[in-house]
Amino acid sequence: MWKPPRMTSLPTIEDARAAQELLRGAVHRTPTWRSTSLCERVGADVRLKLELFQKTGSFKVRGATVKVASLTDEERARGVIAVSAGNHAGALAYAASRAGVQSLIVTWETASEVKLAAARAYGGETLRQGKTPLEAFEAMYEKMAERGMVLAHPFNDPRIVAGQATVGLEIVEDVPDVAAVLVPIGGGGLMAGVAMAVKALRPEARVIGIEPVGAPTLTRALKEGAPVNLTDIATIADGLAAPMAGDVSLALIREHVDDVILLDDAAFARAMGFLAERQKVLAEPAGAAAVAALLEGAAGPLPDGPIVAVVSGGNVDPRQFSSIVASGDQAERTDQESRSSRPGGPLA
Amino acid sequence: MWKPPRMTSLPTIEDARAAQELLRGAVHRTPTWRSTSLCERVGADVRLKLELFQKTGSFKVRGATVKVASLTDEERARGVIAVSAGNHAGALAYAASRAGVQSLIVTWETASEVKLAAARAYGGETLRQGKTPLEAFEAMYEKMAERGMVLAHPFNDPRIVAGQATVGLEIVEDVPDVAAVLVPIGGGGLMAGVAMAVKALRPEARVIGIEPVGAPTLTRALKEGAPVNLTDIATIADGLAAPMAGDVSLALIREHVDDVILLDDAAFARAMGFLAERQKVLAEPAGAAAVAALLEGAAGPLPDGPIVAVVSGGNVDPRQFSSIVASGDQAERTDQESRSSRPGGPLA
Repeated sequence: MWKPPRMTSLPTIEDARAAQELLRGAVHRTPTWRSTSLCERVGADVRLKLELFQKTGSFKVRGATVKVASLTDEERARGVIAVSAGNHAGALAYAASRAGVQSLIVTWETASEVKLAAARAYGGETLRQGKTPLEAFEAMYEKMAERGMVLAHPFNDPRIVAGQATVGLEIVEDVPDVAAVLVPIGGGGLMAGVAMAVKALRPEARVIGIEPVGAPTLTRALKEGAPVNLTDIATIADGLAAPMAGDVSLALIREHVDDVILLDDAAFARAMGFLAERQKVLAEPAGAAAVAALLEGAAGPLPDGPIVAVVSGGNVDPRQFSSIVASGDQAERTDQESRSSRPGGPLA
Repeated sequence: MWKPPRMTSLPTIEDARAAQELLRGAVHRTPTWRSTSLCERVGADVRLKLELFQKTGSFKVRGATVKVASLTDEERARGVIAVSAGNHAGALAYAASRAGVQSLIVTWETASEVKLAAARAYGGETLRQGKTPLEAFEAMYEKMAERGMVLAHPFNDPRIVAGQATVGLEIVEDVPDVAAVLVPIGGGGLMAGVAMAVKALRPEARVIGIEPVGAPTLTRALKEGAPVNLTDIATIADGLAAPMAGDVSLALIREHVDDVILLDDAAFARAMGFLAERQKVLAEPAGAAAVAALLEGAAGPLPDGPIVAVVSGGNVDPRQFSSIVASGDQAERTDQESRSSRPGGPLA
């Protein structure tokens, strides 16, 4: 089997292209659809990159598959370990199982059971340890040492980022004249990969990231100039509940992302309701974040031309879906909570 | 504008082809996707015809558009009227508005508000009258006479059926070796059209209809040899809550459908949960009926080859979605309630 070369530096567009070759047939080539209702509502030509239709229900399987494929035989024998709120869990378990590699996912006590159950169904082992994402990270490093497993970091790994960058390649393939791309930010792996790929192929496109006010990893990291450990994470978007940015993602985001926007949970909930009602898709809170930025008018003045919002995942319990949507109705629309970290210019 | 010829008899495959030409560009060409999770669960090669992604959220816009296009100038000036639980309402309002024609939708008192609101948003007028679907039908005929409007029957009209038949054409285009097609039955318009088209192009394919135990219009009509008015409709699948079959649909179904299966509401609810969890799509109860037949093993032994289940609509309130899904968990799996009206042979 072909293996991507060991990367010792930031992933490049060539790494993204190699990842795309590797992923062909292994993951879905998800569609990019024009959304008439979003176009009308937002007053722009809006397309949705529907990555919630991806295998395992989120983009995470791209990076996880590239990572597992890069393992040496010795590393394969040791197995892979990761910390995850769930989407990387399912994705890594799936990718590892398909490659005949053992996987262990560590997560915090209150993480979504539906996502962990999916990881187990794909053949992964799961372990709840720690009250917060940060404590789970610590527990994961301990387990990694104890069991001699190989780290498959949920976002801060050049191979993972090269895998997620294939979302950006597909966006430019499907919408060659793309004018802006909106991407949710957790630890920043998807954002970093997509931004790098889109800017390499279409430098004039505006690239915007969205993160929860309750987990502002990138906003904090950009301010401090380095990743900051957040002890106090509070968001319904478990897919964006990373306790820190990665230095890989920070470096790429600093270079390629034009703007990072903060939104509250109610905005994610309203976007979930909109996507359900008008697009008939079940997005998780993180998956609805980019659409939320458009619906709330938080992305600032949009450039002319097609705007692509990445709907990154759909792993939400159908039995809890309605109460999340309803929570968006109840909340006031507090536009002051959606603020831009540096409107109008690149972050670098 | 080209108008389909006035049909005085049952629609044929040529009528379906003419409808397809007419609909090109006016409605979505919906995708047919292979569902890995359904394949694994059912042990067959299952594909989903995702008609819930259709404009207005259901297949109904196909027939409604063909019907409106067939109006004479004099009829256009009079406007169109229909009775509908909601999907035909939105579809007719949409098609009529786009053609500059007035529309009035009559429905019963307890019909879904979310669907009626959609019809109004598309520019239609709505009226709640009568406690049951049958009473709403009667009220609609009164209004029709009073206002001199043209009937756009929700299912019992050769043009409407020719429009719905385009779903069958697309299934055979996408899956030329299709071995079986499963379709939900309300008044039977979709079922009749799909069955006619599929059997014309691929006579060896098995065609199976699914209706609710609480609204067994076709089962009763097949037994009695003619449409029967049902006074007592009880199902969560408002899209299948027609109070009678049409004679157009009955004639085509008798000729082309191999089997009609009855399923209870809990089976629809479980299928909605499955489609949400595994496919990330929001199907309404009627839209999940064909998948329910597969999940419950109610479709009998399946032929070798690809099985296509039509997911006919997704107009369900996201705020009520979870409670419907949960109702499927609570109910016992009562296989004895899923019975086949005549397993193993054509109904004719």
